[in-house]
Amino acid sequence: MENWLNAEGKNDDIVISSRVRLARNIKDIPFPDKLSAEKGKEIVEMINDSILDLPEYKDKFKTTKLWESDSLNNKTYFEKHLISYKLLSNCKKAAFISDKDETISIMLNEEDHIRIQCITSSLNLEEAYDTADNLDNLIESKVDYAYDERLGYLTACPTNVGTGMRASVMMHLPALSISNEITDILKAVSQVGMTIRGLYGEGSKVSGNLYQISNQISLGITEKEIMNNLNAVINQIINQENISRQKLMQNYSYEIEDRMHRALGILKSARLLDLSEGLDLISQVRLGVELGIIKNVDKKLLNSLLVNTQPAMLQKIFNTKLNEKDKNYYRARIVRETLDQKN
Amino acid sequence: MENWLNAEGKNDDIVISSRVRLARNIKDIPFPDKLSAEKGKEIVEMINDSILDLPEYKDKFKTTKLWESDSLNNKTYFEKHLISYKLLSNCKKAAFISDKDETISIMLNEEDHIRIQCITSSLNLEEAYDTADNLDNLIESKVDYAYDERLGYLTACPTNVGTGMRASVMMHLPALSISNEITDILKAVSQVGMTIRGLYGEGSKVSGNLYQISNQISLGITEKEIMNNLNAVINQIINQENISRQKLMQNYSYEIEDRMHRALGILKSARLLDLSEGLDLISQVRLGVELGIIKNVDKKLLNSLLVNTQPAMLQKIFNTKLNEKDKNYYRARIVRETLDQKN
Repeated sequence: MENWLNAEGKNDDIVISSRVRLARNIKDIPFPDKLSAEKGKEIVEMINDSILDLPEYKDKFKTTKLWESDSLNNKTYFEKHLISYKLLSNCKKAAFISDKDETISIMLNEEDHIRIQCITSSLNLEEAYDTADNLDNLIESKVDYAYDERLGYLTACPTNVGTGMRASVMMHLPALSISNEITDILKAVSQVGMTIRGLYGEGSKVSGNLYQISNQISLGITEKEIMNNLNAVINQIINQENISRQKLMQNYSYEIEDRMHRALGILKSARLLDLSEGLDLISQVRLGVELGIIKNVDKKLLNSLLVNTQPAMLQKIFNTKLNEKDKNYYRARIVRETLDQKN
Repeated sequence: MENWLNAEGKNDDIVISSRVRLARNIKDIPFPDKLSAEKGKEIVEMINDSILDLPEYKDKFKTTKLWESDSLNNKTYFEKHLISYKLLSNCKKAAFISDKDETISIMLNEEDHIRIQCITSSLNLEEAYDTADNLDNLIESKVDYAYDERLGYLTACPTNVGTGMRASVMMHLPALSISNEITDILKAVSQVGMTIRGLYGEGSKVSGNLYQISNQISLGITEKEIMNNLNAVINQIINQENISRQKLMQNYSYEIEDRMHRALGILKSARLLDLSEGLDLISQVRLGVELGIIKNVDKKLLNSLLVNTQPAMLQKIFNTKLNEKDKNYYRARIVRETLDQKN
């Protein structure tokens, strides 16, 4: 798998990344929310020990126990999409196992005991699923999963029962947003059983025209069907975004050019930048690059900014505690420094 | 006198230019608005011939008869502040005599037969007046002015009777505008008998935080008193603008830095720019230069943009007829090209 932040793929217009996660629990052990911090840690150690035994673990994976790590570092894992907000809030009893590329994260004591998450660049759910499925089999050879013959995998939240799988795709939909077509499309998407979320998953606001689209149903359907359904929807949205981009360029080419160049001009010169404006401007520059209006800006740099402009990452990068105004100042600075890099 | 567009003076913060104009009429000839085009041209030729005779005219001055010049060129003279809107609308019977530096313009058949206008950079009404006064004496040696012992010079509009003099100063007041203090100041200024106008004089809208402040009263007062009164008011406003700039920098230094740099970023990258936004952004960049926030932008270039972004100048520079949208496109282009110049 390729880390989406470093994506060189040609297919990375519109779809930024594909993610599959499998929710699993250990038989006869209460779900994480029912576990004390002490008991939770025991479970983490137990699962971790089992996985450590695997020859595949050595040299490839690393375990991070959130209760041993400082809170700023933990937030950066969240901002890098390595862990979920739920894992962060369970930090007293949670851990995650990640690979060097940071495409794989096995979260321990999230809402479920085990959540295997695989993220790859572009639209490639199959690759993400195959990786997750392999890991799932390896882990299953070491621990007893809570599994019901009729229902499938048992999970803390009923929406995950069955395959325990959520497949999701991060899409960048600026043209549909500019043209206001996005509202109708999102309505249609949710009517066919898909869920729409922002850059940081459940409960996160949509910003930077980034939409995470995922399956809502996990029960009575196979993993392959989940992926096929989602792929079909995603391909339709890609198609509509492309049509919308063409229309914009046909009818408003000057205005679009103006908007994209201004966005880059502001990013390169602002001294204060809040997160939401920053993500919006990055979105416009990305569209400009994809439409061929803006040259000499590497999309990898734009990807890195999606993460590096987040509050904890800023404090990590500049190695200092920042208040709100400071954050806007340092955010503007990292943006300028990043865009001034020779590509 | 120094052309304000090329001003190198150190004193050109806040006050951009000083202007004096004297309104004169020829004895026993109806005011221009009462003259047919034919009769008007005769008067122009008559005055011009008298002035041509002066040894001072030769090699130094040039006469432009608006009815012989094309309408686009005439508009550029207006945009360069060489002639007034009134002269432009009298183009069938009007002319002007200008020097090479374009600091002097003797308008013929404006509202009055003769309007001697001298513009110099920075706050220097005395120099502008001395130049105008000299020209006035030279012309008076050749033609008979309409003059009343009791009232002074007779003019078409009663507000000009007396000295026939209007002294005006173009000020750049961005800090007072940002801080919203400008409204009260303008109110006070008009209460002490001064008039406030925009970049293009009577009837023109204020844009780019540029204000022309001039005397309202011309009768029962000497030229020296007019200048003294105006100087006193201008110096007070300069003082208040400076205090306001200091306050802004003390209380909002990051926000001001951000605003100035963004303004430059947008000017350097926009592909469409309307006149009013352009003037506002130029104003912010000028303030940034004057506050030391922006380096490497020559204020001469900013001055040139005040004129070169005007509609007729754009068509003249790019040698093409432009519709509204074209103008915004070419305006953005001249701004980018100008700011990309090595200083």
